[in-house]
Amino acid sequence: MMSGPAVHPVDAPPMTIAAPRIMMKDLQGMPGTLGSLILCLCQLVFAVISVCVMVTTSDFPTLVCFSYLVAAVGLQIIWSLVLAIADLYAILVKRSYRNAAVVSLFAIGDGITSTLTFAAACASAGITVLISNDLDKCKVNHCTRFMSATAMAFLSWFAASPSFFMNFWSLASR
Amino acid sequence: MMSGPAVHPVDAPPMTIAAPRIMMKDLQGMPGTLGSLILCLCQLVFAVISVCVMVTTSDFPTLVCFSYLVAAVGLQIIWSLVLAIADLYAILVKRSYRNAAVVSLFAIGDGITSTLTFAAACASAGITVLISNDLDKCKVNHCTRFMSATAMAFLSWFAASPSFFMNFWSLASR
Repeated sequence: MMSGPAVHPVDAPPMTIAAPRIMMKDLQGMPGTLGSLILCLCQLVFAVISVCVMVTTSDFPTLVCFSYLVAAVGLQIIWSLVLAIADLYAILVKRSYRNAAVVSLFAIGDGITSTLTFAAACASAGITVLISNDLDKCKVNHCTRFMSATAMAFLSWFAASPSFFMNFWSLASR
Repeated sequence: MMSGPAVHPVDAPPMTIAAPRIMMKDLQGMPGTLGSLILCLCQLVFAVISVCVMVTTSDFPTLVCFSYLVAAVGLQIIWSLVLAIADLYAILVKRSYRNAAVVSLFAIGDGITSTLTFAAACASAGITVLISNDLDKCKVNHCTRFMSATAMAFLSWFAASPSFFMNFWSLASR
């Protein structure tokens, strides 16, 4: 008789969980890491110093370019603050942002704010050089303050660009 | 008798060639494509117009910033020319640059030249706005020429950045 048992032995399903979609690598500097939080705080500190120094000159609204610097660096401050809060939250709940949509949002935001800050810093640098070097009117102008504000804007851009490149890189290397 | 034939039938080896390492995708705009050549020629044309217009103002060497614009856009011209020749060669021999070292060299070069051009364009824009808007001295200065040269430098940057991003993207997504 070849009738087998009613219950056939079945291979136990393998206990390994099906390999998930390859996740992004979690580099320091990517959103949700301590490196990213430090970069954000650097951006924030430099941007705040830049705006504060520029606002104390009192004649900055008379020049279009310095007003633009204050506006662009102000935008940088808001963006860095949002990013710093997001990073802090991710660190506190011990998670990181690996979602492609979130990372691309961060990359686009970083790209726009850092480009605006860089443009504003370059324009201010051009005008500061013009005033101090070509026109030689530093006596009637706040040259040192303009220079400090410009330098701080450059440093803020310098802190913003690594996180943009890391986000872009991790987005492309998914 | 179970002795088999001396020559055993062997499965014919599959004719498919072993899958090579995944190559970079060949997008239009990457070095060695027609898109890249068109972008390079755009950079070149805009940069040449920018330098020519600026040089005709005759008083540009008195201002640091406009001299810097000429220098930066001159560098852009040299780089675009090199890239255009490399692209033309690749198109003529019907190959494309898929080597990571070459693509990263192109990405770094594009990044440096486009950043310098953008910085020079922003600084010139700041000074042009200062002269035309704040100081209102367009009668004694070549405002329209300064503006045209600045606008052409911006357009040159605008044509340079896509190839940088494409190279960077293809480098990351290998």
